[in-house]
Amino acid sequence: MIKEGNTVHLKGKKNSFFIKVEKDKIFSTHKGNIDLNQLIGKKFGDIIQTHTGEKFFVLKPTLFEIIMYGIKRQTQIIYPKDSAFITLKLGITDGMKVLESGVGSAALTIVMANAVKPTGKIYAFEREEKYIKQAYENLKLANLDKFVEIKHQSLEEKLPEDFFDTGFIDVREPWLYIENIKNSLKNGAAIGFLVPTTNQVSMTLTALKEHNFLDLEVVELLERHYKPVPDRLRPEDRMVAHTGYLIFAKKGF
Amino acid sequence: MIKEGNTVHLKGKKNSFFIKVEKDKIFSTHKGNIDLNQLIGKKFGDIIQTHTGEKFFVLKPTLFEIIMYGIKRQTQIIYPKDSAFITLKLGITDGMKVLESGVGSAALTIVMANAVKPTGKIYAFEREEKYIKQAYENLKLANLDKFVEIKHQSLEEKLPEDFFDTGFIDVREPWLYIENIKNSLKNGAAIGFLVPTTNQVSMTLTALKEHNFLDLEVVELLERHYKPVPDRLRPEDRMVAHTGYLIFAKKGF
Amino acid sequence: MIKEGNTVHLKGKKNSFFIKVEKDKIFSTHKGNIDLNQLIGKKFGDIIQTHTGEKFFVLKPTLFEIIMYGIKRQTQIIYPKDSAFITLKLGITDGMKVLESGVGSAALTIVMANAVKPTGKIYAFEREEKYIKQAYENLKLANLDKFVEIKHQSLEEKLPEDFFDTGFIDVREPWLYIENIKNSLKNGAAIGFLVPTTNQVSMTLTALKEHNFLDLEVVELLERHYKPVPDRLRPEDRMVAHTGYLIFAKKGF
Amino acid sequence: MIKEGNTVHLKGKKNSFFIKVEKDKIFSTHKGNIDLNQLIGKKFGDIIQTHTGEKFFVLKPTLFEIIMYGIKRQTQIIYPKDSAFITLKLGITDGMKVLESGVGSAALTIVMANAVKPTGKIYAFEREEKYIKQAYENLKLANLDKFVEIKHQSLEEKLPEDFFDTGFIDVREPWLYIENIKNSLKNGAAIGFLVPTTNQVSMTLTALKEHNFLDLEVVELLERHYKPVPDRLRPEDRMVAHTGYLIFAKKGF
Repeated sequence: MIKEGNTVHLKGKKNSFFIKVEKDKIFSTHKGNIDLNQLIGKKFGDIIQTHTGEKFFVLKPTLFEIIMYGIKRQTQIIYPKDSAFITLKLGITDGMKVLESGVGSAALTIVMANAVKPTGKIYAFEREEKYIKQAYENLKLANLDKFVEIKHQSLEEKLPEDFFDTGFIDVREPWLYIENIKNSLKNGAAIGFLVPTTNQVSMTLTALKEHNFLDLEVVELLERHYKPVPDRLRPEDRMVAHTGYLIFAKKGF
Repeated sequence: MIKEGNTVHLKGKKNSFFIKVEKDKIFSTHKGNIDLNQLIGKKFGDIIQTHTGEKFFVLKPTLFEIIMYGIKRQTQIIYPKDSAFITLKLGITDGMKVLESGVGSAALTIVMANAVKPTGKIYAFEREEKYIKQAYENLKLANLDKFVEIKHQSLEEKLPEDFFDTGFIDVREPWLYIENIKNSLKNGAAIGFLVPTTNQVSMTLTALKEHNFLDLEVVELLERHYKPVPDRLRPEDRMVAHTGYLIFAKKGF
Repeated sequence: MIKEGNTVHLKGKKNSFFIKVEKDKIFSTHKGNIDLNQLIGKKFGDIIQTHTGEKFFVLKPTLFEIIMYGIKRQTQIIYPKDSAFITLKLGITDGMKVLESGVGSAALTIVMANAVKPTGKIYAFEREEKYIKQAYENLKLANLDKFVEIKHQSLEEKLPEDFFDTGFIDVREPWLYIENIKNSLKNGAAIGFLVPTTNQVSMTLTALKEHNFLDLEVVELLERHYKPVPDRLRPEDRMVAHTGYLIFAKKGF
Repeated sequence: MIKEGNTVHLKGKKNSFFIKVEKDKIFSTHKGNIDLNQLIGKKFGDIIQTHTGEKFFVLKPTLFEIIMYGIKRQTQIIYPKDSAFITLKLGITDGMKVLESGVGSAALTIVMANAVKPTGKIYAFEREEKYIKQAYENLKLANLDKFVEIKHQSLEEKLPEDFFDTGFIDVREPWLYIENIKNSLKNGAAIGFLVPTTNQVSMTLTALKEHNFLDLEVVELLERHYKPVPDRLRPEDRMVAHTGYLIFAKKGF
């Protein structure tokens, strides 16, 4: 049963919308208006209509869809191929306290928050105040805002000590904050970074080595799509060639 | 505090072991024996010694490490790059009922079970009885066995109807069972497949189209590692070139 | 010294043109007209001007540039990453008689013709008459037309027997013509194919095996570009993900 | 007709040998000895036997085969995927004077020498004397030694000025010699580099920009092989993940 506060995927013939169900609210499409009250009490799989009679299926969106099609992007996001791998590689699971900085559009935050719930929390530090409001909106769309605390704080400011089970850093110059990050992690904790350039990889590795981090790894993931045509199966003509380099390490003892 | 039944990562100077803590048991290494009783009550981050005085750090293993270094492999496993992506793409989260077949070494099962806990369940169907015992052992190592039910059953046998929220199929000829799989899924549910050859991709796509599945996608993920040397950064000389093609679709209405 | 008939690369501040030098002809650019007579007698590296005073360097174009920027494309072309590899893999060198079909825009023909000159020849069979005229124009731009003979002929028609040292086939259904192709090759001769889909790869391999071809290989080449910025080195955001699968084999005895 | 001095490919049931035909010489295989005199006068495609009756086909080796299986490797070689692309990208063709340094095992030299013959020449500068003898041997195996002149000289020593039509540099620190290289090139000439690390790419790009080189490009080529099985078509399990980054530029005016 769909309740107020749920996020639904309205799938029409040509368009998909991802919206949060709110009482006494109208959602406008170019195919007519939808009174959101009619969604309450419906089941996923049901059909609703706009005031002009256009039909939409009411589907339960996956986190993947919320990230790719639902959230508003105010920055370059971390894509599912990377966020899924990061979350598994860092061993993020329920009950963990996770450091994140910056938060950007919260695309990674959503995946990590889903992994730490119900008893863990993402502590996200974002130095650009302008991103924080939309990040919360995006987390609400995924119903995961209560597992995330976003602070308007730069990594230059002191983090809580010996506090985080793991963390992920997506800032321009992570090497400047390695001491602070290290102190905030528990012994043996895994930490990850995403940087787009090879120069940043080198700088980050250097800082990690200087601070005795262990098990350094650098990896990139490439996602190649095929045209789903059984008798003419072939890769798509073009692909995303680069999102970022992932760096992983563990706090030494 | 480490308790009986926990899985720990013993990290020595050169070797890592992933073991389940049991009372009154001795674990033998070529650097001496470890009385597992001494692990009980220790904290993650502590140090223990073998009877010859060799030191090991006691770390909490991540699921990633359990999959890559802990479980016994009796089949080709589904690697983290794929299992993480599959789980996010299918939207697997707490409370879901997930179809899986076959179970193999349970490497994917572990990742999906971690995602559905505490209230969901993986229903794994495995037609080779010989794999099931070890699959359970592997799940126990990850402390996730209670979220998985493995049945010794082929996909030829009727699955429960309109029952699963999503599913993942890793069998040789998935196209033979599409009708059965479709009936077992709820409307709009996402389903995924892994097959190693292009011929299998074509066969599976054909069957999915014939059964009115929607949103067909075929994707492969490539994982490229770099030598983590800051001033001589370069990709590793060799890489895994292929694990499998991933196919995704949604049950139509 | 530049002579009539040479192809030159006119490199301006923003635009590059690849043109064939002809007497008493005017070449129009949006920066003014160029009297081609002024090119005759110039050296590569010199500067010329349009009637409005816009300057262009006169450079000798490489085959690579002629293929990528000079020729008119009437079909999907075979790109340099592939044509260079094909030519080396097939061992194409001066004096060889090379089978090609189809000829398309002659992008591969240009590379192979350059390799067989001065005493070899490309025998190109093209069943679509409409492509042949432009293919010759493109070959003339590269000054290689005298090493190529294009016949308006389908691979269904009998090829000369025991005649070709090697060959390359880029048609939709190469498996239909394997017998004819085989008979036209000398013993032990290498043959190559480009096909865009995996289904075509399978069909071609089957036909090659049935006709006792040896040393079957299937390969694809991926070309990844980086932004040439020393302190922010990173791959381009997007890349060509697929041009075609290359198949190589040798005529058995 | 096979003559003294030719290089032949002896293809047996399981083994292939690439040897230079010499008079009154015995070639030993573990399947018996081959009197090389019997090769003289044979045609490519003929069969010869060892003294124990083991049969070998006598094939004409392609340059590709000579590079991959014939030459002795004393260094990491430049592979055909790269050497073919380099040669086409640089526009190397008959009559050109080409700078090369170092020469290593001459794998690239062979491809470039084949492209400049009969009237051009590769001027290879190698500072390690120990490589030069074998490099010449390798070139002789390919019958291309007369189009190459190898000098025992480092790039620190002055190169001929305004002399080369193009060049390719494969040394550890190319940025140290950019001034010398630039002066040796004709105006507008293309130049290429291979370096294995991203740090070297950055250093080389910086030097090229400082010396006003134009049209900077950085590219890498990946070669992925498939198992040539028609009904179970799939990529090989593993692949070469990295040979080197290719850098291309043009001498400015």
